[in-house]
Amino acid sequence: MYTPSDPLSCYPPPAFDRPDFLPMDTDPGELTLTRPLLEEALAAKPALAALSSEEKQGVLLSMADALEAATDAILAANALDLAAAQDTIAPVMQDRLRLTPGRIADMAAGVRAVAQLPDPVGRTLSSHTLPNGLGVSKVSVPLGVIAIIYESRPNVTSDAASLTFQAGSVCVLRGGKESIHSNTAIVAALHQALAAHQLPTALVSLVTDTTRASANELMQAVGYIDLLIPRGGASLIQSCVDHAKVPCIQTGTGICHIYVDGDAQLDKALAVVENAKTSRPSVCNAAEVCLVHRDIAPTFLPALWQRLVADRHQAGQPPVELRLDPAALAILGKGIPAGYDDFDTEFLDYILAVRVVDSVEEAIEHINRHSTGHSEAILTQTRAHADLFTRLVDSAAVYVNASTRFTDGGQFGLGCEMGISTQKLHARGPMGLEELTSYKYVITGDGQIR
Amino acid sequence: MYTPSDPLSCYPPPAFDRPDFLPMDTDPGELTLTRPLLEEALAAKPALAALSSEEKQGVLLSMADALEAATDAILAANALDLAAAQDTIAPVMQDRLRLTPGRIADMAAGVRAVAQLPDPVGRTLSSHTLPNGLGVSKVSVPLGVIAIIYESRPNVTSDAASLTFQAGSVCVLRGGKESIHSNTAIVAALHQALAAHQLPTALVSLVTDTTRASANELMQAVGYIDLLIPRGGASLIQSCVDHAKVPCIQTGTGICHIYVDGDAQLDKALAVVENAKTSRPSVCNAAEVCLVHRDIAPTFLPALWQRLVADRHQAGQPPVELRLDPAALAILGKGIPAGYDDFDTEFLDYILAVRVVDSVEEAIEHINRHSTGHSEAILTQTRAHADLFTRLVDSAAVYVNASTRFTDGGQFGLGCEMGISTQKLHARGPMGLEELTSYKYVITGDGQIR
Repeated sequence: MYTPSDPLSCYPPPAFDRPDFLPMDTDPGELTLTRPLLEEALAAKPALAALSSEEKQGVLLSMADALEAATDAILAANALDLAAAQDTIAPVMQDRLRLTPGRIADMAAGVRAVAQLPDPVGRTLSSHTLPNGLGVSKVSVPLGVIAIIYESRPNVTSDAASLTFQAGSVCVLRGGKESIHSNTAIVAALHQALAAHQLPTALVSLVTDTTRASANELMQAVGYIDLLIPRGGASLIQSCVDHAKVPCIQTGTGICHIYVDGDAQLDKALAVVENAKTSRPSVCNAAEVCLVHRDIAPTFLPALWQRLVADRHQAGQPPVELRLDPAALAILGKGIPAGYDDFDTEFLDYILAVRVVDSVEEAIEHINRHSTGHSEAILTQTRAHADLFTRLVDSAAVYVNASTRFTDGGQFGLGCEMGISTQKLHARGPMGLEELTSYKYVITGDGQIR
Repeated sequence: MYTPSDPLSCYPPPAFDRPDFLPMDTDPGELTLTRPLLEEALAAKPALAALSSEEKQGVLLSMADALEAATDAILAANALDLAAAQDTIAPVMQDRLRLTPGRIADMAAGVRAVAQLPDPVGRTLSSHTLPNGLGVSKVSVPLGVIAIIYESRPNVTSDAASLTFQAGSVCVLRGGKESIHSNTAIVAALHQALAAHQLPTALVSLVTDTTRASANELMQAVGYIDLLIPRGGASLIQSCVDHAKVPCIQTGTGICHIYVDGDAQLDKALAVVENAKTSRPSVCNAAEVCLVHRDIAPTFLPALWQRLVADRHQAGQPPVELRLDPAALAILGKGIPAGYDDFDTEFLDYILAVRVVDSVEEAIEHINRHSTGHSEAILTQTRAHADLFTRLVDSAAVYVNASTRFTDGGQFGLGCEMGISTQKLHARGPMGLEELTSYKYVITGDGQIR
């Protein structure tokens, strides 16, 4: 039986003495780097909750204007980042970091596009009346505080801030050290817009400590953070899986496969593979692996070599390095053998692992074992193979006869996106505004009891 | 730049030698207790994926029949559990453990109800054609393998197994040690039904090791388990928050509040509070805290004492122990002062903490600080207070003038339920079949590139 508590024990509990915004279940002493920022973020929540849809839209439009007005300052800051990065990161990664007036205009356009999207908060998702007269409504609500840990792309800063704001949540941004000057300048512009609307700038909070310690603190900040979105490489994702105590959505790691079936149309297959591999190799929806059916391999593989290696070399474009399994190597009679990890690596570069398979079933099996669950494609003229592939491949986006590069919130019509979820819980594939909300049930009665 | 791998390194990678169903990212050596069971569970997935909606329904109806046919065996097993529990757990917890022919019939009826629910898998959630001709469909898919860690209620075994099966996923059940005989007998009945349909019994897998070690293994089984649902006390939930590497949904802990506003109707308020506290105190939607507006406290609190303590004592019902804050104590002039933890405790017993507040805002603030986010109610005649309460209280179910006891999948029309989510991600409140699925995008084209 329950032991009644000591009637002489103190009342009220010490928790009553804490500031309003400090949650019960976190020891504030643990968060030495981020505590003041997280407390301000929490304290800013009510100011956002009080805004109407129209007011949120007005703030977002001001943010877009402020970004464009700050173009010079942002470019100057970006130049500092680029200079520091010149010798430390690969050229394809420098491309992610680089801003131009055009890219800043794109960022502002992205914020304006978010402003035009329907408010995802306050939607009635379902509603019914129970036989006893209780009215049960399911309504969308903000998540609260969303933290995003990301790497070197500065445009993520304005994308994430605008999406989180429109979704009614406070954002805590923790970008990579490579883009810290750019991010600081971008957030300064967003803060100008917030201040002009008499809103707390903590609604868009930037963690300026870019050490691993600050990321670890965000993973531990139970009670402060309602959702943590890590956008980055495999080691960041793995760290979140292993250590995060706050709710977390894995995004972005894409070992994407294209399976060329035995009866695929050669020209279209070559075009799709080239597009999926080379149109932007540094992004997560780029293809890393090409599986080729044994029947088509003797014609397809030499044509692929011609197209991705010889033709590109001749045209002055970066050729693709093909890493070949033994069967592909035997057919081509030349090339680099695939190594131990080549079918489990997100290259993010002009590299493509190639394997010959005997059947669509073998392709599916390979994919389900080696994929990160992002995007996969089958190129085929056989309806039954397409159906089998889309049914059994366990990834967020499964394509028939199209490039994996379309996995993108903008392409899918979500406005812009917060990332591509590669997990199955809550959100899968591109995350737009609706994926950044939660819901609650509101039940109204007249004294009903059960 | 990327360093090309050693062309002399071994090929194919050792992973190719692993059994098909063994995921890449788990070291099988770590899972000493559960590995064989988890491998069988994974291997059983395709058999379930191959079933049509009608076939799944037929299996579920067989499961229900098998449960009823095994009533004697299940009751005999339950008697063993009850005998062992007699001296170790509280009477209200023994109520959770006890089975009767009527409760077993209820379990079978629950399985039959699930069989009649629409198949949640394969629904087209949205569908549109992009300007470039790509068709984009969002379709619901099974999660894969769902593990449930629960405590002493044996009916959870058949509820969870039937819901998971209808949702197209394999279930791994890990019940409490108190109910191990009951659970084994229930699963044996379900296995008879699976075997009769030539299905692998691993589709409903029971972990017979009931030590903490087996629960810990399930939390670590990345690659085997797509969703872990802990249904139990605060320490189990906390352990999952701290240690789980697999995706997890927190359920069940309910520190539920009822706020009696200054103008609440006295009779209805008394009836709702008594119902919410006493109709089944051992469940998570029972009220644990009553907040009372200062204006009504002088009339409401003596009436509450009369109803919950004196009347119930006289009627031979268990009286409710009221734990009073200083203001309530002063008004009543008698009773037990609330102790240090009484506003942060899920009593699951005939105990109610009582606090007097000055306003609906203070009630909301108290709730958002002390609640587990399960269910809260306001009893009021003031529309503006009801609106403020439902908007600002950050819990899964927010009631106006009704008992918190209605938070239940059956009551909400979901059929039966897998638990009540108290988190904001993926599912909130009662989880039915739809909350046990994921989705993927299927994109069909004709060679589109980006």
